[in-house]
Amino acid sequence: MFFERVAVIGVGLIGGSFSLALKGKKLCGHVVGAGRSAANLKTALERGAIDSVAADVAAAARDADLVLVAAPVAQFRGIFQDIKENLKSGALVVDAGSTKRDVVATARAALGAKIAHFVPAHPIAGAEKSGAAAATAELFRDRRVVLTPLEENSNRDLESVARVWGAIGARVSRMTPEAHDQVFAAVSHLPHLLAYALVSDISGRPNSAQLFGYAAGGFRDFTRIASSHPEMWRDICVANGDQLLKEISKFSSELEKIKKFLESKDAASLEKLFADARAARERWLTGEHE
Amino acid sequence: MFFERVAVIGVGLIGGSFSLALKGKKLCGHVVGAGRSAANLKTALERGAIDSVAADVAAAARDADLVLVAAPVAQFRGIFQDIKENLKSGALVVDAGSTKRDVVATARAALGAKIAHFVPAHPIAGAEKSGAAAATAELFRDRRVVLTPLEENSNRDLESVARVWGAIGARVSRMTPEAHDQVFAAVSHLPHLLAYALVSDISGRPNSAQLFGYAAGGFRDFTRIASSHPEMWRDICVANGDQLLKEISKFSSELEKIKKFLESKDAASLEKLFADARAARERWLTGEHE
Repeated sequence: MFFERVAVIGVGLIGGSFSLALKGKKLCGHVVGAGRSAANLKTALERGAIDSVAADVAAAARDADLVLVAAPVAQFRGIFQDIKENLKSGALVVDAGSTKRDVVATARAALGAKIAHFVPAHPIAGAEKSGAAAATAELFRDRRVVLTPLEENSNRDLESVARVWGAIGARVSRMTPEAHDQVFAAVSHLPHLLAYALVSDISGRPNSAQLFGYAAGGFRDFTRIASSHPEMWRDICVANGDQLLKEISKFSSELEKIKKFLESKDAASLEKLFADARAARERWLTGEHE
Repeated sequence: MFFERVAVIGVGLIGGSFSLALKGKKLCGHVVGAGRSAANLKTALERGAIDSVAADVAAAARDADLVLVAAPVAQFRGIFQDIKENLKSGALVVDAGSTKRDVVATARAALGAKIAHFVPAHPIAGAEKSGAAAATAELFRDRRVVLTPLEENSNRDLESVARVWGAIGARVSRMTPEAHDQVFAAVSHLPHLLAYALVSDISGRPNSAQLFGYAAGGFRDFTRIASSHPEMWRDICVANGDQLLKEISKFSSELEKIKKFLESKDAASLEKLFADARAARERWLTGEHE
């Protein structure tokens, strides 16, 4: 498995880490990058994440054996349209979008007859840091990558993409785009939204300076993901809005239950809920769900 | 400043760390411990956090120059009653309760004419680990300790207590019990409740194993405080229920606002809220509110 020419569209944390990892494993030749920020592309060049900068997305895709689309998902339509004409026979297109139903629909619309080239994936390797400066060859080590295969994909292409991610350390699994978007609405998108909501709530108060002054380690960890990339999370929220609204509704019911315990000073039910939650989290941490 | 005999009631993370820190700074002679768990007291002895174990709380308080009450707050009434008769003239009583209005009311009721001995405080040094095994002399270094003085306290006693906490590394400030309970409902109690609620929500689903299987670093940090001590958090929620309900209501309004953005696919408002929250968090992290 060797890709003579790799194109990375969006050389941020994910795109830059992907190419650094491929290079580290000697799985590729030349890597060309494309993106919106000249300063970020310069950083990517300096860090050796890419070998050259393309004039535009279409130029980056020309002659590429592997194209990674790692931009915020709202840009995917234009990117797929731009790469379509220059996609050579046998080229693989992969992505790193955090939502999958919308990405698949966008790819179908934009790639048309060339849809079989595209093997959708979601690497679960976010961080509150972004940009090529934060990229690292080790980002995907022991992280999950979820493939959401299309019926048009050949088994050979699916295996190739799974092997690429596996070669740079990821644990690869498969899901439908629908199941993917449900699962990640619950365990990723909702927590991000709650963290943003809490910081927004606190920072909008007249006494926010006092409140932040007494916020400590628990608050810091709880809100770490509220330092995530606003544009990326805007796109995720819009793309997966229906599932996210369902998750907000389930969470609100849970909060309503706890509110009733508080109102009735039901200490036993509060303690049981806390103890059960702690036990469930400990089982998770010790890997019972792996 | 030297305390010949110190009594620690509840030798857990906070109580054990307090005595280890005092000993490390050579600020005390003999430390006697009392608590509900013989196994935990044995650990505290083995780790050198205490020098002896008292038969009961009343015995621990006898002849003590400084008494620290560091049990879950629901036990405070019985503890104050037990120490009252054995409290010697000039002895200081301090606590580490995470709520202050209820602790002050309980102390007044139980200590009666001896209330002036008691200088209430809240060290902001929680952790999801608990027990004497987790105690460390460095726990309070650079952490805040909030004193909520009583009108009965002498300035000399207040200064002494502030100096003790300061000597073991804490940054000491003062608030009324009412302000304290408002501030910590927002920046500590609410986040804990939300973290418990999310884990409870996820773990109660039929597909919880699948969901936990894809939960990653963001989820882990967001829910770290859901591994906190269930009994301690039960007591905090009951004691500060009125403020906590107000905070849930404010947070629910914030969430309702975000829901409307999602329903109307208002990408610009979502991005602005996320960007503002991230900026507010960055200001906090860089110490603008210190």
